[in-house]
Amino acid sequence: MTAIPRGYVVVDADGNVEGVYDILPARYADLPVEDFGDKLLIPAFVDLHLHASQPVIQGLGHDPGADWFGAFCHPAEKRYNDLVYADALNRDLIRGLWEQGTMHANIMCTANLASTKNLFEQYEETGMAAAIGKMNADYAAFGGEPLEETETSIRETVEYVDWATGRSKQVIPALAPEFAPAMTGELMGALGAFAKERGLIINSHMCEGDFDNEAVAARFPEERLYGKVYDKYGLFGQTPTAMAHCLTCEEEEIALMAEGGVFMAHCPIAALNGAPETVMPRVRKFIEAGVPVGLASDIGGAHTLSIPQNMVAAIQISKRIPGYEPLSLTESFYLATKGGGALFGQVGSFEPGFQFDALVIDDARWNRHVEFSLHERLTRYIYCGDSRDIVHRYAAGKRIVL
Amino acid sequence: MTAIPRGYVVVDADGNVEGVYDILPARYADLPVEDFGDKLLIPAFVDLHLHASQPVIQGLGHDPGADWFGAFCHPAEKRYNDLVYADALNRDLIRGLWEQGTMHANIMCTANLASTKNLFEQYEETGMAAAIGKMNADYAAFGGEPLEETETSIRETVEYVDWATGRSKQVIPALAPEFAPAMTGELMGALGAFAKERGLIINSHMCEGDFDNEAVAARFPEERLYGKVYDKYGLFGQTPTAMAHCLTCEEEEIALMAEGGVFMAHCPIAALNGAPETVMPRVRKFIEAGVPVGLASDIGGAHTLSIPQNMVAAIQISKRIPGYEPLSLTESFYLATKGGGALFGQVGSFEPGFQFDALVIDDARWNRHVEFSLHERLTRYIYCGDSRDIVHRYAAGKRIVL
Repeated sequence: MTAIPRGYVVVDADGNVEGVYDILPARYADLPVEDFGDKLLIPAFVDLHLHASQPVIQGLGHDPGADWFGAFCHPAEKRYNDLVYADALNRDLIRGLWEQGTMHANIMCTANLASTKNLFEQYEETGMAAAIGKMNADYAAFGGEPLEETETSIRETVEYVDWATGRSKQVIPALAPEFAPAMTGELMGALGAFAKERGLIINSHMCEGDFDNEAVAARFPEERLYGKVYDKYGLFGQTPTAMAHCLTCEEEEIALMAEGGVFMAHCPIAALNGAPETVMPRVRKFIEAGVPVGLASDIGGAHTLSIPQNMVAAIQISKRIPGYEPLSLTESFYLATKGGGALFGQVGSFEPGFQFDALVIDDARWNRHVEFSLHERLTRYIYCGDSRDIVHRYAAGKRIVL
Repeated sequence: MTAIPRGYVVVDADGNVEGVYDILPARYADLPVEDFGDKLLIPAFVDLHLHASQPVIQGLGHDPGADWFGAFCHPAEKRYNDLVYADALNRDLIRGLWEQGTMHANIMCTANLASTKNLFEQYEETGMAAAIGKMNADYAAFGGEPLEETETSIRETVEYVDWATGRSKQVIPALAPEFAPAMTGELMGALGAFAKERGLIINSHMCEGDFDNEAVAARFPEERLYGKVYDKYGLFGQTPTAMAHCLTCEEEEIALMAEGGVFMAHCPIAALNGAPETVMPRVRKFIEAGVPVGLASDIGGAHTLSIPQNMVAAIQISKRIPGYEPLSLTESFYLATKGGGALFGQVGSFEPGFQFDALVIDDARWNRHVEFSLHERLTRYIYCGDSRDIVHRYAAGKRIVL
C-alpha cells in the first residue's frame, strides 16, 4: 500500500485513473482540479456478497438457540415477494451502501423476478456499480417444498438476464444460485451453461458448516464436496465466481478455487455472529493457496453494511486462528478494495486503468491531539470512524449524491 | 427484562426513579410530563473501566507483532503529563462518553495529579457520573524505571482524594492502582488501608495473560495469584472493586471475587483486538460463580467507547467459548446497565430508588418496513445503531446537554 501526502489522482474522461502523482505533471496543468485539502482520498469499498431481502433482519436471530433460517431469513425472503415492500427496502439498501462508501456490490436478491428487477432499476439511476442476481432454488434443502420449479427458475433467469443486459454501464446482471443443497443438478447445469454463454458473475454460498456439507455429500455422493459439485456444473470459476463463507473447505476445494480463480467472499462479522458451532474462517489459508479474497457484509448475517467494520472483524478473527499469521490493516484494506474489486475487473485501486471509485474522508474526529502518520490516520478511520466521516463518494469518476 | 409499550417512568425531585407504570397513577396527574412518543426509553450505559490518556491510541497497535504497551500505551500515558494537552483530551473524552450514552464511567487516569484533577473538574460540570482515579505504579513491572516513588504515589493519592471528596454529587474519586506487577506490597497495603478508611472504589486490572500472571507469581510467590495478592493488601472487595480483563483467573480467584463482590470489568472488544495469545474472557463462568459483571470499553484496548458495540462483542465472544451457554441480548444488556451500574449503587435500571440515568432512542432508521416487537427494536438499536440514534441523555433525572 502506498500513501502519498497531498498527491494528485488524474482521472480520464471515461472515469478511469490515469495516474497518481506527488506533483502534478505539466501536461495536466489545464485540467480542472478538485482540492480536498488535508482529507484522505481512498479507494471505495467493495461488498462481495449480500442479500437484498435481509436488511430487516440485521441484528436479529443471534440469541442462543434462535432458528436464524426458519424464523428470520426465510420469512424476510418471502416478504420480498411483495413489490411495494421490496421497492422501499431496495431504496434503503442502496442508500445504506452509498452511505457506507460501498461503490461495488455483489447482491443476491430472492427468486422473485419483479423485486429483483426493481433493485436493478433503482440501482442504475445512482451511478454506483453492482452485480445483481435473481436467486435460484428448485430443491427443498432441508425438507418442505422447493422455492420454485426447475423450469420456472431457468426461464425467469434467462428473462431477467435478457432484460438486464446492456441496460446500464455500471449495473450488471449476475447469477445467484442459492447453494448446492437447494438446487437440482439439472438447474445447476443449465445455469452453468447459461453463465458461460453470457459471461455472467456467479454469486453463491459454500461450506457454512456441517449441516450443508452433509447435505451436499448426501445428495452428490460422487463429488462429495461443494466445490466439486459446483465445478461439475460450471459454477466454479468458469466465469467470475464469488462464494460466500468458505468456512469448512477442504484442501481439494481450496486448490480448485485457486485454480479456477474462485473468490472467497469472506464474511467476518457474519461468522462472529454465527451460532456456537460456526467454524471461524481461515482467510490466511486461502490467501496462501492463491485464492482471490474479498470482504462481504453478508447482510443480514452481519448487522452492518460497513466494510471497514468487516475489515476490523477480519483482523480480529485472524488472530484467533492458531498457526496462521494474523492479517495486518494493510492486508485487510486490500481485501476490502482491490481484493474484492477484482471480481468486477480493474476496481479497488488508484493504479492506472482502474475505475476511479473513491471516498473522501474527513477524519478530523480521529486526527486530533497528536501527530498521526498517514497510515495511522487510515487505521483510525477504519477502526474508529463510520459513515459520518465520508464526505464525498465517487464511482467511475463521477461524484455520487443520493 | 421488562419492556412496557408507551409506559411512564416517574422520577422524584432527587433524580431517582419513583416507579414505572403502564398507566400513570392518578396521584401523579399534576406532574409535568415529557412525551417521547414512540421512541425507546432505556437505562443509560455504564463503562466499568477505561483509560483517560488512551483515546489517541484507539484503533492503533493491532497489527501483527506491534508492541502495544511500549509503542502505543506508554507514550500516550506519558504525554498525558502535559496539562494543556490533557485538558483538550479530557474534554473530547467526556464528549465521547456523553455521545455514546455512557452516564456512569469508571476512569483510570495516569499517575499525573494535575491532569487527573483536570478531568474531575471538567466532569463535574457536566452532571454525568464518574469515578475517577489517579493511577499508582511504583514498581517497574517489566524492567526500566518505576513510574513514581512509593511515598509520592501515596502522598499525591491522599492529596487528590482529599481535594476531590465532596466536590460533586455525581463525580467521585476512586483509587486506580495500575496492576499488581507495577506496585510494591508497601504501596498496595497503603492504598488498601486508605480505600477502606474512605470507602473508595478500586479500579484496576488482573489476569490479562501469562506475561502478567508470571510476573505476579514471581514477585509474590506466597500468594502466587493476582486475586490473593490484591486480597492480602485490601484491594479485592473490601471496598467496591472492579477488575478489568480477568482472562485467565483460576477457580480460586473467581471464588474470591464472588465472595468479596469483586466486579469483573468485562472488556470484550479489547479482548478481540488483543494479540493472538490473548485468552478470550469466559464471562459465563464468572456469572455462574456469582461474580458481579459489567462491561467496559477499556479505551484504548477497544477502538470505540460504544457500550452497545461491546455488548455485541460480548455476545460474539460468548459463542466461541466451548462448554458455556452463550449470552443472550437481554443478558448482555443487563451487563451494560444494571450489571456494571451496581458498582456505583442503584444504577442501571428503572426500578424504584434507582438513579434515573436514561437514553431516549429514536430508532426510526431500524424500525422500518416491518413490524418489530419492542425486544426486536432494542436488539436492532444495539446491533445496528450508533450514537446518532440517541436523541436525549439523562443523568440523575437531569437532561444532559453538552
